[in-house]
Amino acid sequence: MTVNENLKFYDIAEITKKHVYGRECRVKSPLPLLFNGSGVEVKVTGSDLFIEVDTDCDYHEPWVAYEINGAFMGRQMLLPGSHSICLFRNMEPTTPKTVKFYRELQAMGDDDTVKILVKGFRTDGEFQDVPQKSCKIEFIGDSITSGEGSYGAYEDTDWLAMYMGVSRNYGYLTAKELNADYHFISQGGWGVYCGWDNDRRHNIPSVYEKVCGFSKGPKLNAEFGTLEDYDFSWQPDAIVVNLGTNDRTAFRYPPFVDPDTGIANKMNQDEEENLDREDSLRIEKAVIDFLKMIRSHNPKAHIVWAYGMLGYDLTLVLTEAINSYILETGDKNVRFINLPNTTPDGFGSHMHPGIKSHTVAAGVLTQYLKEVLKL
Amino acid sequence: MTVNENLKFYDIAEITKKHVYGRECRVKSPLPLLFNGSGVEVKVTGSDLFIEVDTDCDYHEPWVAYEINGAFMGRQMLLPGSHSICLFRNMEPTTPKTVKFYRELQAMGDDDTVKILVKGFRTDGEFQDVPQKSCKIEFIGDSITSGEGSYGAYEDTDWLAMYMGVSRNYGYLTAKELNADYHFISQGGWGVYCGWDNDRRHNIPSVYEKVCGFSKGPKLNAEFGTLEDYDFSWQPDAIVVNLGTNDRTAFRYPPFVDPDTGIANKMNQDEEENLDREDSLRIEKAVIDFLKMIRSHNPKAHIVWAYGMLGYDLTLVLTEAINSYILETGDKNVRFINLPNTTPDGFGSHMHPGIKSHTVAAGVLTQYLKEVLKL
Amino acid sequence: MTVNENLKFYDIAEITKKHVYGRECRVKSPLPLLFNGSGVEVKVTGSDLFIEVDTDCDYHEPWVAYEINGAFMGRQMLLPGSHSICLFRNMEPTTPKTVKFYRELQAMGDDDTVKILVKGFRTDGEFQDVPQKSCKIEFIGDSITSGEGSYGAYEDTDWLAMYMGVSRNYGYLTAKELNADYHFISQGGWGVYCGWDNDRRHNIPSVYEKVCGFSKGPKLNAEFGTLEDYDFSWQPDAIVVNLGTNDRTAFRYPPFVDPDTGIANKMNQDEEENLDREDSLRIEKAVIDFLKMIRSHNPKAHIVWAYGMLGYDLTLVLTEAINSYILETGDKNVRFINLPNTTPDGFGSHMHPGIKSHTVAAGVLTQYLKEVLKL
Amino acid sequence: MTVNENLKFYDIAEITKKHVYGRECRVKSPLPLLFNGSGVEVKVTGSDLFIEVDTDCDYHEPWVAYEINGAFMGRQMLLPGSHSICLFRNMEPTTPKTVKFYRELQAMGDDDTVKILVKGFRTDGEFQDVPQKSCKIEFIGDSITSGEGSYGAYEDTDWLAMYMGVSRNYGYLTAKELNADYHFISQGGWGVYCGWDNDRRHNIPSVYEKVCGFSKGPKLNAEFGTLEDYDFSWQPDAIVVNLGTNDRTAFRYPPFVDPDTGIANKMNQDEEENLDREDSLRIEKAVIDFLKMIRSHNPKAHIVWAYGMLGYDLTLVLTEAINSYILETGDKNVRFINLPNTTPDGFGSHMHPGIKSHTVAAGVLTQYLKEVLKL
Repeated sequence: MTVNENLKFYDIAEITKKHVYGRECRVKSPLPLLFNGSGVEVKVTGSDLFIEVDTDCDYHEPWVAYEINGAFMGRQMLLPGSHSICLFRNMEPTTPKTVKFYRELQAMGDDDTVKILVKGFRTDGEFQDVPQKSCKIEFIGDSITSGEGSYGAYEDTDWLAMYMGVSRNYGYLTAKELNADYHFISQGGWGVYCGWDNDRRHNIPSVYEKVCGFSKGPKLNAEFGTLEDYDFSWQPDAIVVNLGTNDRTAFRYPPFVDPDTGIANKMNQDEEENLDREDSLRIEKAVIDFLKMIRSHNPKAHIVWAYGMLGYDLTLVLTEAINSYILETGDKNVRFINLPNTTPDGFGSHMHPGIKSHTVAAGVLTQYLKEVLKL
Repeated sequence: MTVNENLKFYDIAEITKKHVYGRECRVKSPLPLLFNGSGVEVKVTGSDLFIEVDTDCDYHEPWVAYEINGAFMGRQMLLPGSHSICLFRNMEPTTPKTVKFYRELQAMGDDDTVKILVKGFRTDGEFQDVPQKSCKIEFIGDSITSGEGSYGAYEDTDWLAMYMGVSRNYGYLTAKELNADYHFISQGGWGVYCGWDNDRRHNIPSVYEKVCGFSKGPKLNAEFGTLEDYDFSWQPDAIVVNLGTNDRTAFRYPPFVDPDTGIANKMNQDEEENLDREDSLRIEKAVIDFLKMIRSHNPKAHIVWAYGMLGYDLTLVLTEAINSYILETGDKNVRFINLPNTTPDGFGSHMHPGIKSHTVAAGVLTQYLKEVLKL
Repeated sequence: MTVNENLKFYDIAEITKKHVYGRECRVKSPLPLLFNGSGVEVKVTGSDLFIEVDTDCDYHEPWVAYEINGAFMGRQMLLPGSHSICLFRNMEPTTPKTVKFYRELQAMGDDDTVKILVKGFRTDGEFQDVPQKSCKIEFIGDSITSGEGSYGAYEDTDWLAMYMGVSRNYGYLTAKELNADYHFISQGGWGVYCGWDNDRRHNIPSVYEKVCGFSKGPKLNAEFGTLEDYDFSWQPDAIVVNLGTNDRTAFRYPPFVDPDTGIANKMNQDEEENLDREDSLRIEKAVIDFLKMIRSHNPKAHIVWAYGMLGYDLTLVLTEAINSYILETGDKNVRFINLPNTTPDGFGSHMHPGIKSHTVAAGVLTQYLKEVLKL
Repeated sequence: MTVNENLKFYDIAEITKKHVYGRECRVKSPLPLLFNGSGVEVKVTGSDLFIEVDTDCDYHEPWVAYEINGAFMGRQMLLPGSHSICLFRNMEPTTPKTVKFYRELQAMGDDDTVKILVKGFRTDGEFQDVPQKSCKIEFIGDSITSGEGSYGAYEDTDWLAMYMGVSRNYGYLTAKELNADYHFISQGGWGVYCGWDNDRRHNIPSVYEKVCGFSKGPKLNAEFGTLEDYDFSWQPDAIVVNLGTNDRTAFRYPPFVDPDTGIANKMNQDEEENLDREDSLRIEKAVIDFLKMIRSHNPKAHIVWAYGMLGYDLTLVLTEAINSYILETGDKNVRFINLPNTTPDGFGSHMHPGIKSHTVAAGVLTQYLKEVLKL
């Protein structure tokens, strides 16, 4: 291969004309991509562009994807090592190209090794100002918002990184349709109060105020400050919370014994699947507290709880909590909407929404946000 | 035209093998079709079938539609008079045909003259048992459930009977997809607490217990007992309530002066369109009372409040009321779901949902009912 | 019903501001609607509009449909008699409404009685200039172009007028999408050379030069001159010929004994369904002659043979003929395209294309005509 | 990353239980993937699977894609070097997984370096019989069949490898829908007679009988015998030829001076874009000769010329040639169909069909092949 002698390396921290998607930590070089959807976008002239990344992992390998001028170009697994990934070659050099490189995989909690570190770009072009986005949206959720099952065949049921992808996810599709900047904070299996298996530690509010509370391994934290307080300097116009699906599932599962306390916890339902009132109120308290937490850090954002892609069972519990929150606080900038439940032909792998279901949900959410944000 | 000498008239009351859609009154011959969707279905052999109907009206003329073997065949206006409407001719005589004739137009409240009276059928065939339906669904609603705007061009804004049609309506489409029997009780402009113009008399609960409380003209009542108590002998498996859209609109409109009391009523909102709490609670009380009323007459039905096709603004008000109702009564067989809001390309005429929007909503509702009713 | 005292009758011939769809005969009052799609369009102010029609028929009753401002409003059967059909009532009187009333049913050959005669309109409004169309298209075809099976359930197999409808037909949909004026000349069962049953009299060229050669009954001819020479004063921009489907079917059917000559005719194929060369050449000669005939009357029209909605078997026969025609005549303004074959889920009744298949075909044809006619 | 100690390398030639897509050359280890769509499929148990490939290129880098159980998983560029690409990790080891790895990029003619060589797999599982395909289809074409523009944004116009992808191509989609084995032989810019720029060397027939005649570089040929005669041992059930689009374009372009002969060649059209008859006949002769060539090597295959995704202009030229071929040879197992032209909203990048247009075309072709092959 003829080597392009004109390529020059630019450290990611030196490139001022770039857009970073997703929450950032204190380390700016190399730039860690902590969440699903976390990525970097540049507008660059030149014929060639490479991104230089270091990655590591143990069980769950990171996947990444990239786009040129908004069009999906590639998606691949990155095993541990240093990678020089070519994003384009031999293009017409004077025309600027908008290129985005992003993490497909959610933050992987228990694996202290999973990382994608963007060291910089190599190019023979020049960086230009990245076009402005129309608005900023934060998506908070569980496996649905992590795009679990959006890749893979219907019969695939392994819990694997490769089936997760932000790129086919309702939130990503919504942001693309609205040309919005976004943050994703989501984790498969987690709830607003407890995880699908009654593990009460797996609640999103417990990590929301940290930089990336899912990445709680000591090394990750030491290196990137993932467990440090997040500064909320990025103020979204809208916050979409898609939680509750795992809280509801917990009612159907056996107790979880907390390894720290030895206490067995369980959400209870009767034989007709009516949820226990006390347990429902536990969820509601978690919702109310979470809304207060969100609001305290995002005073002006429109908050919408968007729920239903894997069943509507918790709609009344969630809305009761939201109403209580509004009554208590007087905060009127909070809403609830259902996203349509996944139909039998809308599943991807692992009994999770597939691209068809995510597309339908994105349509409903896009329309909603257009009206609320007057886009 | 060669006259079929073998046609024989069957009085509607004599035909035991038939299915009547919609609430019936005490008069069985001629059979009045009181509501949108009200109709009669027969399965009949023979070569020819005519339906004999008498109609009357003043301003708002009734429209009807008919189907053969489930396929839409015709839709027309019926001006006052006696009509012998041919539903089929010259068909293969031994094959039974399932034929449905139904009213497109909602009950028209203020017009004491609007009626469609089915006197009977003329045929040379024999009546067979009409196939069983999978379940029974009652739809309660406003103009959306009356299919207003489901016919007509986008720019048409007159308030006319011809633009209303149950045949393109989310409820009708849902019932067809589920092969369900149904009742419709709906009225354009009405709410659960008040009408779009703050007229508090225009609330559906006030008429729900009557045979057809919209048809309150003295002649109609005398003739058909429309204002008599309805006996609720038809017990639905599910009740879909799609109300709230007009209650919300009332907040945007000037006061309505009640002609009986002289009192000017108005729902109030502030400049940012936040709804007045007192007024919201008025709606909530109406919702709670209506749910109690519905439950008292339908002890086993699953009740789902399905809302959102023209905006989600009242979601939290409605769910707060439903939650209050559940808390107060312990009734757990009540739910809430959003039907997707109409997108800009989904409108029919008169800024109401068109066939595209109704089809989307029917998809969501069908999926919901399939799960809840285990169909 | 309150009678509108201001309605005034306008004889159809007196109304200069109108648009007539379809071929006209020498009789202008009452105006016969001879073909599927034949109709009359007016743009009129006023609150009410009635159309006055006389109809007759024996076996096959005519069906009609009507639209307001381009939106489908009604479809019904008309049995013999005089009909005053209300097209709108109580509309805002100053706004002009564009209203179209048209025949759904094809010309019915053997029935000397089928007719729809438009006598005029009654209205309290004034007639305005009907908006100009973008272009003129003539559709020539068989049952597909007559919309047979576009109404009715999949299992319906009777050959009946009610299952035929121009309103769901690819040609009608194409003309609507292009905002085009149109003529339809089509007949179920007919071919370019012979009918589906090997009846060689059932070829469209034999009637193309007559006003309405399908309507060959002596009374119809005497009354309306249906068998008189057509004057071709209406010059289309494009002519779409959708013929060949029945010619191909004839190869699969037994011989037809011509009642006039006593000769049994049949198109032959071998066991592998390869068409006999001589018989194919008979079709080709018919195609060539028909193209010459069409061209002689329409010197400037773009001619496209559009074929395939019920199978592509004759594509090479038809194109061979078209190529021969072009070689012989030097006429370069002739083309061939396939319309997509009906998929299993695209059928209507009677194993004919349903609305889904017609919509797909209309999409292909619309795109084609937009390019060719530079619309 | 924990290293899986149980991985064992299997040379590609040793794996008897595999399926190879696309034409093979005499070298079996490493296995070169010569064409777009060329690939290898295995069904394997175990937890991990890696594919070991060597690649090279100069200007146009190869792209590959991979699927698990039929679902798209990844797509990436491969720069020169040795690659160990993980296809899955940590899967449930006893469940067999069907995995396919294939080349996205067409054979790149002038680049003697472009190659993808599959050395083998590393796995801890066992190879099982790959499931049988329903039939075998050969696709012969130009840029459309190479999927040019099926990736990339509408405004992208560079001629680059990354915009080409068999994975979104009508042929690939058709084969997937039919569960068919396939071969692709296609090249952007080439025709049946000449290329888009009047370069007469760029005709597919000239290379059809070689193993991979596009790869004519001396090194490639020496190494893999790309210019050796292909043995046609793989006998398809159907052959789809999608050629003519570039032959037509040549009429619009300036002459091409053959560098070998110095002769300037050009296809000619008049001002109204009517094609010169002599030049059309040149194309026809090429079609006839090519059909003879195809038939000589594939005596039983159904051949269908499928044309039109970028305009129908050559339909009559192509069908005239096909008819001549049939007349001359008596071969009746040849057909022609149009694939629907790309609509304005159906384009991908570079003014080529996008995924939407390819999906529509695949629907038409799938339906056609199902009928012809009685699938």
